[in-house]
Amino acid sequence: MPRIDAERLLSDLHQLRAIGAQDRGVVRPAFSAADMKARRWLKRRYEETDLEATIDGVGNVLGRSRHSGKALLIGSHSDTQPTGGWLDGALGVIYALEVVRALGANEATRALPVDAVSFQDEESRFVGCLGSRSLTGTLTPEMEQGAVDSRGVTLADALLEAGLAGVPRLRLARDRYAGFIEAHIEQGPHLEDAGRQIGVVTGIVGLRSIRFVFRGQQNHAGTTMMARRRDASTALYELAHRINLEFPKVAAERSVWTMGRLRVEPNATSIVPGYAELDLQFRDPSDAPLDAFEAIVASLVSEMNARGGVTVEAVPSRAPIAPTRMDADLQAHIETAAERHAPGNWQRMPSGAFHDAGIISASIPSAMLFIPSVGGISHDFAEDSRDADIVLGCQVLADAAASILAAANAVNSVVRS
Amino acid sequence: MPRIDAERLLSDLHQLRAIGAQDRGVVRPAFSAADMKARRWLKRRYEETDLEATIDGVGNVLGRSRHSGKALLIGSHSDTQPTGGWLDGALGVIYALEVVRALGANEATRALPVDAVSFQDEESRFVGCLGSRSLTGTLTPEMEQGAVDSRGVTLADALLEAGLAGVPRLRLARDRYAGFIEAHIEQGPHLEDAGRQIGVVTGIVGLRSIRFVFRGQQNHAGTTMMARRRDASTALYELAHRINLEFPKVAAERSVWTMGRLRVEPNATSIVPGYAELDLQFRDPSDAPLDAFEAIVASLVSEMNARGGVTVEAVPSRAPIAPTRMDADLQAHIETAAERHAPGNWQRMPSGAFHDAGIISASIPSAMLFIPSVGGISHDFAEDSRDADIVLGCQVLADAAASILAAANAVNSVVRS
Repeated sequence: MPRIDAERLLSDLHQLRAIGAQDRGVVRPAFSAADMKARRWLKRRYEETDLEATIDGVGNVLGRSRHSGKALLIGSHSDTQPTGGWLDGALGVIYALEVVRALGANEATRALPVDAVSFQDEESRFVGCLGSRSLTGTLTPEMEQGAVDSRGVTLADALLEAGLAGVPRLRLARDRYAGFIEAHIEQGPHLEDAGRQIGVVTGIVGLRSIRFVFRGQQNHAGTTMMARRRDASTALYELAHRINLEFPKVAAERSVWTMGRLRVEPNATSIVPGYAELDLQFRDPSDAPLDAFEAIVASLVSEMNARGGVTVEAVPSRAPIAPTRMDADLQAHIETAAERHAPGNWQRMPSGAFHDAGIISASIPSAMLFIPSVGGISHDFAEDSRDADIVLGCQVLADAAASILAAANAVNSVVRS
Repeated sequence: MPRIDAERLLSDLHQLRAIGAQDRGVVRPAFSAADMKARRWLKRRYEETDLEATIDGVGNVLGRSRHSGKALLIGSHSDTQPTGGWLDGALGVIYALEVVRALGANEATRALPVDAVSFQDEESRFVGCLGSRSLTGTLTPEMEQGAVDSRGVTLADALLEAGLAGVPRLRLARDRYAGFIEAHIEQGPHLEDAGRQIGVVTGIVGLRSIRFVFRGQQNHAGTTMMARRRDASTALYELAHRINLEFPKVAAERSVWTMGRLRVEPNATSIVPGYAELDLQFRDPSDAPLDAFEAIVASLVSEMNARGGVTVEAVPSRAPIAPTRMDADLQAHIETAAERHAPGNWQRMPSGAFHDAGIISASIPSAMLFIPSVGGISHDFAEDSRDADIVLGCQVLADAAASILAAANAVNSVVRS
């Protein structure tokens, strides 16, 4: 079995961390100067590892193996949140590089084809999972057209600025691959709480979101009597609180919902608001609770609109995400490797956060591996994982990659012969 | 009885409107260049009308009559909201000027002393009713110290910029006055709805406000299970909606309450908010409903805090306003004048908005007169009143001023003789 080089792995993680470093965190949002610098650094690393490397027209960095046979794609994303942690997607990106090197250094695994990838804009500066969507052909012109970041910069301008305008975009060669594995920090507290070192992801939760738009009439808060008011904020508070009362009645064990973004106009103490917005986001590993949540929302909205006064409009999000099952066969390989290196110290778990693997899984068999996040903290400068966990995760991934590729190519040989 | 000059009145209103005009509205916030220009223009107008005029150290413009005997103070404020209407306080300011001129032009009223005033910062750029508070000695050093505008400019810097640093501040000479009358647009729909031309204000509603501060724990909206969350927004929605359910049970006929300003941190769709703020403001012509509202708030807050999780802190506003009764004798004079010029076409009414008269009434007998606002609109570029209503209101005020002063000085003569 291949052996990873812990020192080389950690050294590369810290070299990548230095690009866009700020305090203990990293500021490397998609298409920023730091992000593009990191992608060019990664491309050189791929080339030094004898991969055929490309930065495509949306910024994906792909390193293709020169070996023949069914290949395994490994990777994640190297862009970060506006104020991001140093691991997040970077972990899975450097794992891929290290797995290529570890397999290449071992006689028995030297000929196995592993491709490495860093997807672009997983963190939604413009379009969440832009890179993996583009690679799988699910990035629509409509998604691109309306895409602006929080400062009003358009995706088209960002591509131009990054030197990517007109650069060809890669498409995933489905037939080339036995599958895709993405390693990632957990970004939650479950592994740490359970004292486990490896999470084998069973599926990625589905996510839907709804934007509520409340339209009333702006008025003076002193001279407008209650009976006359059409207060957009009052309707917002009612709908939000009733959602929080009704959802638990139909929620499943891992259902979560959040109303963390809102806007009230003009947002002044002495003015009755005439306009408000509220975002509702809900997630579950299965569709049934998500459907039940939607039914509750529809019923509350229709009840409130029937009353007159403030109108409530529920606009579904542009890109709902269906719950995704990870590939059972790939999971089994990861579990075997986890049990070998951390006996009894790993667990199966769903992913509450979304990942590129959720996009790629629609095209080729996909799986994910988690390592623990210290304190469950992520998307924050304080994000961290223990070195021992980082090293163990990469070794498990290398073992799993070797066994997946051995199996895939053995079958192929049999079929071919 | 004195006769006002409608053309002169409207001409001066439009001259004042031109200072800081923008579209159909006026941008003349306290201490801005436009505001100070308007105050200097007004001082010259006072001087032309033979008043002894001063701009004091907070920007109040006071024009004192040179006649002896008990005087009547008339006026309002010439500062506007950041995007204000053209009438608002300007109406009462120009009415005062016209009443001085109308009384001065009439043989029978020529010797009656009328002082005219424009208070500073009624609209709360720094401190609501700054000018009338300063004049009555109720502006505390604490109020001044913490005073900054929405852009972070301090009151001290604004005074310096306006050339008012070190300029003496006037104090109201209580013994000089028989009373104060403030004329103002209604800023609400009641007069227009009732088809009335004059409102005689019976009192100004009391106003209290509370800022709620919610402290929880910021988290990832996908990986943090519901049972583990301390979501500041959830607590905000609950408290706000329950206030809207409970307050009507103890509300009086004219009670109003508003939760029009809030803040949720970090205000992102995919992040469980760790911090939130909500402002609650409530008003009533009497104290009893305001006390009952406070009791409900205390009970809800204590119930929510007892539950654990998110903590709720209720911070009372720095400057609650007690309900104020307008002086009955002054009201009677205004009613008589209203009945003379608009028989059956006036009404008594409380003021739902606060005014400088609410401050001045603590020092000398005070009263207010309203004219209709077209569509009830105020604090907006669209704010307007019909010329006929503007002219009628000023004539009623002039009559009332003459009869108040005749009565006050007749009594004084009797006492003296």
